[in-house]
Amino acid sequence: MSDPVDPVALTSALVKCPSVTPEEGGALVLLEELLSEAGFRCTRIDRNGTPNLYARFGEQGPCLGFNGHTDVVPTGDPARWTRPPFSGEIADGMVWGRGACDMKSGVAAFAAAAVDAARQGVRGSIALMITGDEEGPSTDGTVAILEWMEREGEKVDHCLVGEPTSRETFGDMVKIGRRGAITATLTASGRQGHSAYPHKALNPLPPLAALAAKLAAHELDRGSEHFQPSTLALVAIETGNPAANVIPGEAKAVVNIRFNDLHTGASLIEWLEREAAEAEAAAGGVKIAVTTRLTGESFITPPGELSDLISSAIRAETGRTPELSTSGGTSDARFVKAHCPVAEFGLTGLTMHQTDECAPVAEIERLKAVYARIIRDYFA
Amino acid sequence: MSDPVDPVALTSALVKCPSVTPEEGGALVLLEELLSEAGFRCTRIDRNGTPNLYARFGEQGPCLGFNGHTDVVPTGDPARWTRPPFSGEIADGMVWGRGACDMKSGVAAFAAAAVDAARQGVRGSIALMITGDEEGPSTDGTVAILEWMEREGEKVDHCLVGEPTSRETFGDMVKIGRRGAITATLTASGRQGHSAYPHKALNPLPPLAALAAKLAAHELDRGSEHFQPSTLALVAIETGNPAANVIPGEAKAVVNIRFNDLHTGASLIEWLEREAAEAEAAAGGVKIAVTTRLTGESFITPPGELSDLISSAIRAETGRTPELSTSGGTSDARFVKAHCPVAEFGLTGLTMHQTDECAPVAEIERLKAVYARIIRDYFA
Ligand SMILES: [Zn+2]
Ligand SMILES: [Zn+2]
Repeated sequence: MSDPVDPVALTSALVKCPSVTPEEGGALVLLEELLSEAGFRCTRIDRNGTPNLYARFGEQGPCLGFNGHTDVVPTGDPARWTRPPFSGEIADGMVWGRGACDMKSGVAAFAAAAVDAARQGVRGSIALMITGDEEGPSTDGTVAILEWMEREGEKVDHCLVGEPTSRETFGDMVKIGRRGAITATLTASGRQGHSAYPHKALNPLPPLAALAAKLAAHELDRGSEHFQPSTLALVAIETGNPAANVIPGEAKAVVNIRFNDLHTGASLIEWLEREAAEAEAAAGGVKIAVTTRLTGESFITPPGELSDLISSAIRAETGRTPELSTSGGTSDARFVKAHCPVAEFGLTGLTMHQTDECAPVAEIERLKAVYARIIRDYFA
Repeated sequence: MSDPVDPVALTSALVKCPSVTPEEGGALVLLEELLSEAGFRCTRIDRNGTPNLYARFGEQGPCLGFNGHTDVVPTGDPARWTRPPFSGEIADGMVWGRGACDMKSGVAAFAAAAVDAARQGVRGSIALMITGDEEGPSTDGTVAILEWMEREGEKVDHCLVGEPTSRETFGDMVKIGRRGAITATLTASGRQGHSAYPHKALNPLPPLAALAAKLAAHELDRGSEHFQPSTLALVAIETGNPAANVIPGEAKAVVNIRFNDLHTGASLIEWLEREAAEAEAAAGGVKIAVTTRLTGESFITPPGELSDLISSAIRAETGRTPELSTSGGTSDARFVKAHCPVAEFGLTGLTMHQTDECAPVAEIERLKAVYARIIRDYFA
């Protein structure tokens, strides 16, 4: 028997790989080496310059999947970091560097637990889906792996995403779903003119401002069984007009909606278009066009088998009972959901995307223990 | 006796001087030469790099003044002009070039009429106030001349500004006043945040948009005896936020108000500050600050002696009875008003500030005839 894989050393080694999206940076190569050696069947599923790795141990069912990403957001000015952003240094009880928290530690913890399990033998299969494009456009990352799996007949029965989901204390939160997200741009078009002669112009701004204020004041819902209320944030109104004596010909407003399971992307787009049409009808000739980008629908894996398995493993390792939440932004779980039931569990994300990102050594070890117990219980 | 001065040749000569604000470009030098030779006492009143010319014929009262500017707005891309922008070419019944219409023709017409009158003798005085900074900040132009006159005890009794005031046909409009103008910037400040967690941010945009829409919908008045209704144009809302997942920390709205004699700058600023304070009180922590720039108060020289003199001269030369108007933007008449009764009359301004600016030869000749008749009648 080999020694168990050290998830802290593995996190440190991964942080040393400068894998800012879409750079592979050596991270997937390092993981492929480790996993191949442990008997995983590894396939690089690169698409349009995005590196992805699928690694499977065992060929029969049931198959437990893990999903995560090795790409990281940019570091900003390295001079503002206490240590170099890709140092991977282990000091003061922390692993330091970009991605330490989001989410090379998560990948290291599940890879370490999976390799240990594989070496001891598994009554079923373990499949790791690791992407290099979660922080970027996400068009050739987990989506590409899942499409390849579909074509190849690779089937996963349940999947755990290793994103940092704990909120304040390790183990306090598991995500069983996510809200959907839409960004809508409202473009109002009129006729430019001189502000001394407003009757000769057709100012698109007043109806746009009124519409934007109305949308921002609208209550979308009051929450549902597993979701908090949907929110709409008015994030921008832009005119691009530096001259006070010019009435602009065009102006734009941007809203960002995070919605729960009481809505769909289509129902919200229809609502926005209806509101815009109503505002346009009252705007004396100003045209208001709506364009939308649906980042993801809301989804949920209702509390049950999968969340019970994760919760009891967390309870056994930490003594805490996690909240089953659907809060926060989007993650690749939205893609995995179409393939199989999915939940997310990982470290606290306090320093993610920030300067001096770091992850506690003790939490990384504990996270591996939770994943190992989930694997053990899943195949028991 | 010399020949009468040709206002068309003089306009052409002035257009050839590239006097884009604040360049003198040779225009005032040329005028000073002509006027000195005719016996005008000329004084250059330059201030902070702005060239100005005061030229007076005669020392006793009454004194009829003329005001105008030789500076011009930039030409834009010269390649877009049919003729070079400073050609001053006389062709197809037009004088062509930047400033032909606004307002070197006006200056040429009143200078020509004044020189002719001076050569024939005047029972009183004629004073010409010609500035090189009307199109720019206007801080060292007509204002500097008037301050110098104040110090020197130079007194003008009535003044005519030669801006292109005719609307569609030469002679159809005299301006007897102007509306005031204020530009106000409303700055709303909150707390930046992530649009997935709007409760952690404090979005300044919804209250700003609502306030902006409210101001834009407000009826300031329905006009007064000599003025059209005051107008408020919402000319910009800017957030400068390119990221749909970021709630901005600050946003600005800009409104431009053109107001009649039912308001003062102070009363409008007070109203804006009251509205902003009210919006702030309802905005749950968002701060809304107001900064204002008062370009000028509204003013009027009520119909009477001066407008009668001008109207009857126009009627005699064109057969048209001009409308006495207070419409349009601002002009240096707002400064002259503090010194003496003032009115404005000049060409049609159809091509002012545009590519291929030009002025009809026939109108320039007619304008000189109107000014000459005004001088004759004034001293009769
Ligand atoms: Zn992540
Ligand atoms: Zn002008």
